[in-house]
Amino acid sequence: MSTGANHFELVVIGSGPAGQKGAIAAAKLGRRVAIVDRRERLGGMALHIGTIPSKTLREAVLYLTGYRQRAFYGRDYKLKEEISSADLMERVSTVVNREAAVIREQLKRNGVRMLDGTARFTSPHTLEVEGRHETQTVEADHVLIASGSRAARPSVIPFGEWVIDADQIGQGGDIPRDLIVVGAGVIGLEYASMAAALGVKVTIIDQRPALLDFVDHEIVEALSYHMRRQEAVFRLGEKVTEVRVGERGQVQVGLESGKRLHAEGLLYAAGRRANTDMLNLSAAGLAADARGRMEVNEHYQSAVEHIYAAGDCIGFPSLAATSMEQGRLAAHHMFGRPAAVRPSLFPYGIYTIPEISMVGRTEQELTRDGTPYEAGVARYEEIAKGQIVGDETGMLKILFHPDTLKVLGVHAIGENATEIIHIGQTLLALGGTVEFFRDSVFNYPTFAEAYKVAALNGLNKLREGFI
Amino acid sequence: MSTGANHFELVVIGSGPAGQKGAIAAAKLGRRVAIVDRRERLGGMALHIGTIPSKTLREAVLYLTGYRQRAFYGRDYKLKEEISSADLMERVSTVVNREAAVIREQLKRNGVRMLDGTARFTSPHTLEVEGRHETQTVEADHVLIASGSRAARPSVIPFGEWVIDADQIGQGGDIPRDLIVVGAGVIGLEYASMAAALGVKVTIIDQRPALLDFVDHEIVEALSYHMRRQEAVFRLGEKVTEVRVGERGQVQVGLESGKRLHAEGLLYAAGRRANTDMLNLSAAGLAADARGRMEVNEHYQSAVEHIYAAGDCIGFPSLAATSMEQGRLAAHHMFGRPAAVRPSLFPYGIYTIPEISMVGRTEQELTRDGTPYEAGVARYEEIAKGQIVGDETGMLKILFHPDTLKVLGVHAIGENATEIIHIGQTLLALGGTVEFFRDSVFNYPTFAEAYKVAALNGLNKLREGFI
Repeated sequence: MSTGANHFELVVIGSGPAGQKGAIAAAKLGRRVAIVDRRERLGGMALHIGTIPSKTLREAVLYLTGYRQRAFYGRDYKLKEEISSADLMERVSTVVNREAAVIREQLKRNGVRMLDGTARFTSPHTLEVEGRHETQTVEADHVLIASGSRAARPSVIPFGEWVIDADQIGQGGDIPRDLIVVGAGVIGLEYASMAAALGVKVTIIDQRPALLDFVDHEIVEALSYHMRRQEAVFRLGEKVTEVRVGERGQVQVGLESGKRLHAEGLLYAAGRRANTDMLNLSAAGLAADARGRMEVNEHYQSAVEHIYAAGDCIGFPSLAATSMEQGRLAAHHMFGRPAAVRPSLFPYGIYTIPEISMVGRTEQELTRDGTPYEAGVARYEEIAKGQIVGDETGMLKILFHPDTLKVLGVHAIGENATEIIHIGQTLLALGGTVEFFRDSVFNYPTFAEAYKVAALNGLNKLREGFI
Repeated sequence: MSTGANHFELVVIGSGPAGQKGAIAAAKLGRRVAIVDRRERLGGMALHIGTIPSKTLREAVLYLTGYRQRAFYGRDYKLKEEISSADLMERVSTVVNREAAVIREQLKRNGVRMLDGTARFTSPHTLEVEGRHETQTVEADHVLIASGSRAARPSVIPFGEWVIDADQIGQGGDIPRDLIVVGAGVIGLEYASMAAALGVKVTIIDQRPALLDFVDHEIVEALSYHMRRQEAVFRLGEKVTEVRVGERGQVQVGLESGKRLHAEGLLYAAGRRANTDMLNLSAAGLAADARGRMEVNEHYQSAVEHIYAAGDCIGFPSLAATSMEQGRLAAHHMFGRPAAVRPSLFPYGIYTIPEISMVGRTEQELTRDGTPYEAGVARYEEIAKGQIVGDETGMLKILFHPDTLKVLGVHAIGENATEIIHIGQTLLALGGTVEFFRDSVFNYPTFAEAYKVAALNGLNKLREGFI
């Protein structure tokens, strides 16, 4: 095989979480690696329009609205009376620029060649990279496709200044006074809850009869309850039949049930599609499904042996954290490194306000499978840290087997839920029992202490049950 | 034995963390329990002048100073230009009142009788409880002494308006422009770092040549570095020979080295003594050491079989979290419950700004014992969550054995350190290896992700070492 300047042992398409980690893992194994992305988009969707901006925005919203302080200064407390989109976006651009520098530095330090442009296959082992100034051809022993996804944009939706998709948030428009969110998936709910915290009147529409059906129902109910307290309205089991922009700029939505809704803005967050349509997959002997998703085996290998795919372009779960791991595992597999066990236990983190996290099984799954369980619950309002930071909404629930006492699942909502879930994840992965939490000492005051309170609660229920 | 109204199977002296948890554990075992404390002091020192107020104060300081926002809005950013002690204490009293209500409710719900007053032994099985209006005698099958501690107040220190001990913080005085802190233990450093965050010029004096010698040195150096960036000055290895209040109210301190220091205020935080001196221990056949501490065996049992002691009055580590566990274990032992294993692995949480936490061994301990180790480090500035919340100071270090890869210790400084340490604690307790963190998926973006970054860093060092 050629060993010219344009020959690489791995070419990675896309520099988001999956691509970055795949490229770095291969480079650490001593391989010659290139990563292709447009210079201004280094870091991928996650950095520029997805995970990072939305989570930074969320922190800015929490801070500028004084949301966390409302327990102390009253429910109407706001740090800043008029919050503009510029206030919010200033912080986002600081973080995005810093993080892009971190990624660039990491790739450079590991000797990964950065190719500016967009890639398309010309054969199974060659790619054309079209940059702003030149088009170059590269040869690749292996390819990792990590080209991400974009918001689905049905042609019947009149996208424009006040009708946008989730990828357009933060492009500087004004904050509407009221907002209709179509799609109550993770992305829709994250933005809907931020808007509600900002004081925007939000209506959330979804065809499905229930929110987030993979999440424990008690946790979902807690989220709905708290979003409603922020004046959010849910229209579930409702199908949108029409979206129009009226003469005076008002957005109008018609539902199949005959209802008509109006608002200043509409966020369309129903569905995403993978960015594989620009890759000319057929030249590599590959194809994608109707939503652009590729099929891979358990090593993230496509139908063509030397081509791998990871991240959003292979579909579920499409979380930055799992995408990173997929990229790393793909790189290890292609270069014959003993494959670490593919983690079956990954956490979900949903950055709504309040945030949600879970690991392991839900009550409904256990019930469906006929596995008996007991639940131990701690409410943040009972624990000192909850009082101190003023979180009146949080709770942690541990599900465990009543005989073996093995932990089966952990579900949390509230401040720091996405952090403390990893305590339960570690115990679950190592096969520990709920007694471990009862007998552990936790720093005081912390949210983590909720594990001990929940364990005591659960074990006490069990004892009462036996008497 | 008597079964009158004033007869209890357990009388607990003191309603702080050790007393509360001991009383509730015994009540849950179906025992007749009373807890003695002055009504206005229910919850003990931890609630009224220790842990809870100081941690609430810390949250109020972090919020009102805008400390967490300085990465975005500049190092001189302050949310509120003039922060008064009333601003800070308002939040503290809200939390203290709520938490007192939670404790009262918990004790009540579990049927624990609350006796208002102070207790003293009249015989090994009888106590006199002196309340505001009446003095009653109670009989006790068992006693749990959990009477806590108070600041040591040497007679040579001219305590007064501007010279106070740590127990007097929050009694409403003004915030001084400059402050001398005598004693660089945990309490001294927690308040010193809060004052520094408030913009007070702080000088910290300690006889010992180094700060917090049980904490990993690298973490201590990071703390010193960041406190110095807040203009704190350390005078270590220096002995205070004189404290005077000058004519114009200025506090003057003389050091053995000949230096003289001036400041508007002085906080004396060198040493505490246990509150056993009012208990008339001799009537129970017991004694305490010069600092009021009682000796107990591994079941928290004193020299007199039916009398137990827990919490600050038995000395080290005097942390609310461990005290709670001691109280619970003492109650279980006295009523013959199969004793849960006494946890040898407890975390330390130090609520300085930035906060510190650790579990397991330090580098210096491992070196002293001749145990080889490798260290994996993650800096918060490299991880997305650090960027998002603007924590430029944090780091997480995992120490592990280079052959077995077993985790030996975890050390953290920065936002959420006291929370995420429990992930490492769980792994350590269950005997896991550093590879577990490399192979786990963590929610993104979280601080917990630092475990994965640190694990990769450590394992890469090891590989480089082998080549």
